[in-house]
Amino acid sequence: MAVYTQLGPEQVGALLARYDVGELVALKGIAEGVENSNYFVQTTQSRFILTLYESRVDPDDLPFFYALLKHLHDAGCKVPQFMADREGQWLQNVEGKPACLIEFLDGVSVTQSTAAQARSTGAALGHMHDALTNFTLSRPNSLGVLAWRPLAMRCTEKGLDAISAGLAARILRECDFLEAHWPVDLPVAAIHADLFPDNVLMLGDDVTGLIDFYFACTEIRAYDLAVTHSAWCFSHDGAHFDEEVSAGLMAGYTARMPIDAQTQAALPVLLRGACLRFLLTRCYDWINTPANALVTRKDPLAFLRRLDFYSDAGQVQNILRHGL
Amino acid sequence: MAVYTQLGPEQVGALLARYDVGELVALKGIAEGVENSNYFVQTTQSRFILTLYESRVDPDDLPFFYALLKHLHDAGCKVPQFMADREGQWLQNVEGKPACLIEFLDGVSVTQSTAAQARSTGAALGHMHDALTNFTLSRPNSLGVLAWRPLAMRCTEKGLDAISAGLAARILRECDFLEAHWPVDLPVAAIHADLFPDNVLMLGDDVTGLIDFYFACTEIRAYDLAVTHSAWCFSHDGAHFDEEVSAGLMAGYTARMPIDAQTQAALPVLLRGACLRFLLTRCYDWINTPANALVTRKDPLAFLRRLDFYSDAGQVQNILRHGL
Repeated sequence: MAVYTQLGPEQVGALLARYDVGELVALKGIAEGVENSNYFVQTTQSRFILTLYESRVDPDDLPFFYALLKHLHDAGCKVPQFMADREGQWLQNVEGKPACLIEFLDGVSVTQSTAAQARSTGAALGHMHDALTNFTLSRPNSLGVLAWRPLAMRCTEKGLDAISAGLAARILRECDFLEAHWPVDLPVAAIHADLFPDNVLMLGDDVTGLIDFYFACTEIRAYDLAVTHSAWCFSHDGAHFDEEVSAGLMAGYTARMPIDAQTQAALPVLLRGACLRFLLTRCYDWINTPANALVTRKDPLAFLRRLDFYSDAGQVQNILRHGL
Repeated sequence: MAVYTQLGPEQVGALLARYDVGELVALKGIAEGVENSNYFVQTTQSRFILTLYESRVDPDDLPFFYALLKHLHDAGCKVPQFMADREGQWLQNVEGKPACLIEFLDGVSVTQSTAAQARSTGAALGHMHDALTNFTLSRPNSLGVLAWRPLAMRCTEKGLDAISAGLAARILRECDFLEAHWPVDLPVAAIHADLFPDNVLMLGDDVTGLIDFYFACTEIRAYDLAVTHSAWCFSHDGAHFDEEVSAGLMAGYTARMPIDAQTQAALPVLLRGACLRFLLTRCYDWINTPANALVTRKDPLAFLRRLDFYSDAGQVQNILRHGL
């Protein structure tokens, strides 16, 4: 949520000179992204995002993200393209950091979704999953089921119960449950893995872009639906479930990607896993971010409330009943 | 350098509905401004900056800034306009904060000026000063000569000498000198008071906009030239004076606003005053900003080096000889 590397028009102008994209006319650092530096770049021809990859993105993963977005774009999905310069290079070096010039997509991220917006998002997610059935590159999920217990232990050592009494024990019980019940036979594919409303651009009820693929990885495909459901179908604090938004999301998704009986049976576990993943990373960030830092800390308990909701088997049956 | 109030498209869309500026198509928080929240707003018709005024800008000052920019715009100066809604309102309330929708100007801020760019900047400053000779509103300069000693005392109490040995004594001697020699008979007018390269938008060698008027105040007019000179004519660390940039800036300015003998005589004092003002505020920010904060602390000593340079009377004679 900040610009870590300061760039002036001299450096950006020199970079743009490698491309056929026109001359620089405006440059603004934007407060967006996970520990990357992002600039809004306006040229005489078009608009772009210039991203400099700081510590959190491994440069070795960039070819996977590039290929993923190209594959999706070629399949007609609405995702931004990494721009290639005159020599075909899409990966640049700016101030010693890996950098990419990326297509700017119009659209805004909704704060609280309507049912119609959730339906469009579900359809876009289904379209993406359909398109990725023949995508062959892979990238491990460093925040998958096997990572949760070690992450829980690191958080516990630093005082998980200071966030909420009994939280450490609750999380370890959930690790036990999920490790014992995690599905092993469901289709695995490249997934987005972080499709929160922040990462969906819309105009009205239409999706204009899926963005921020930096958590994309190879994982149980239906886990992506579980993440998206947990991110879209509740009030921010997790206290209120929105049945209509849920029904819209599920209907939009299944119109493109039907959910078979095996996946339906596994969905309660996948939904709980999605909640634990965000509960844990939010706890980690909460513990490791000073309260007075400029970065806004996200409430971990918002995902404990979702976890409690999904732990009620009747609720998940309800989701499936109203959404299929 | 951050977004302090998070806005979604719902709030911004509702605001835009008050104006005849088209529909929202993109919204990005931008990392810019002095403790305000700034958003880049693209509509179907045009581009804007939406500013929410946080703690550092006094809402009571906004009518002064609005009138100043309108006056300058009407006089043909390149400055952004505060947009008025259908009812003529330019001051809005967004999330309980004063907010203004402001014209977006193309152009980029140079990091290190050329002589030609400095000449254009001098000409734009002269044009602005010329236009403001008949501007009647006033706003006190809270960072003027009388504010420097109290600010120096506050910094000294918190350990000025930790920044550099002997700095407290050097600053107090400078306060003595400036209070004794500060000119009293020079023309006073509204000035920008912070015309660093950051606050000048350019395309090539042409100025496309002067921005960020939130330090604008009523002050000795030639002090604005002194601030601008100190901001433009040195390497960032203040170690190297660029005679050609200086000559360009002075020539551009004086072509529009000749400097009379009385002002020339006072210029060494004004230049030293400009350096002390930024030395002091940078010291204050340095002392009061944790070293590990996300905000980049600016080196105070960069303005001590400029102060030393201008304290050499021969150097100022040189500036006047080559620039007039």
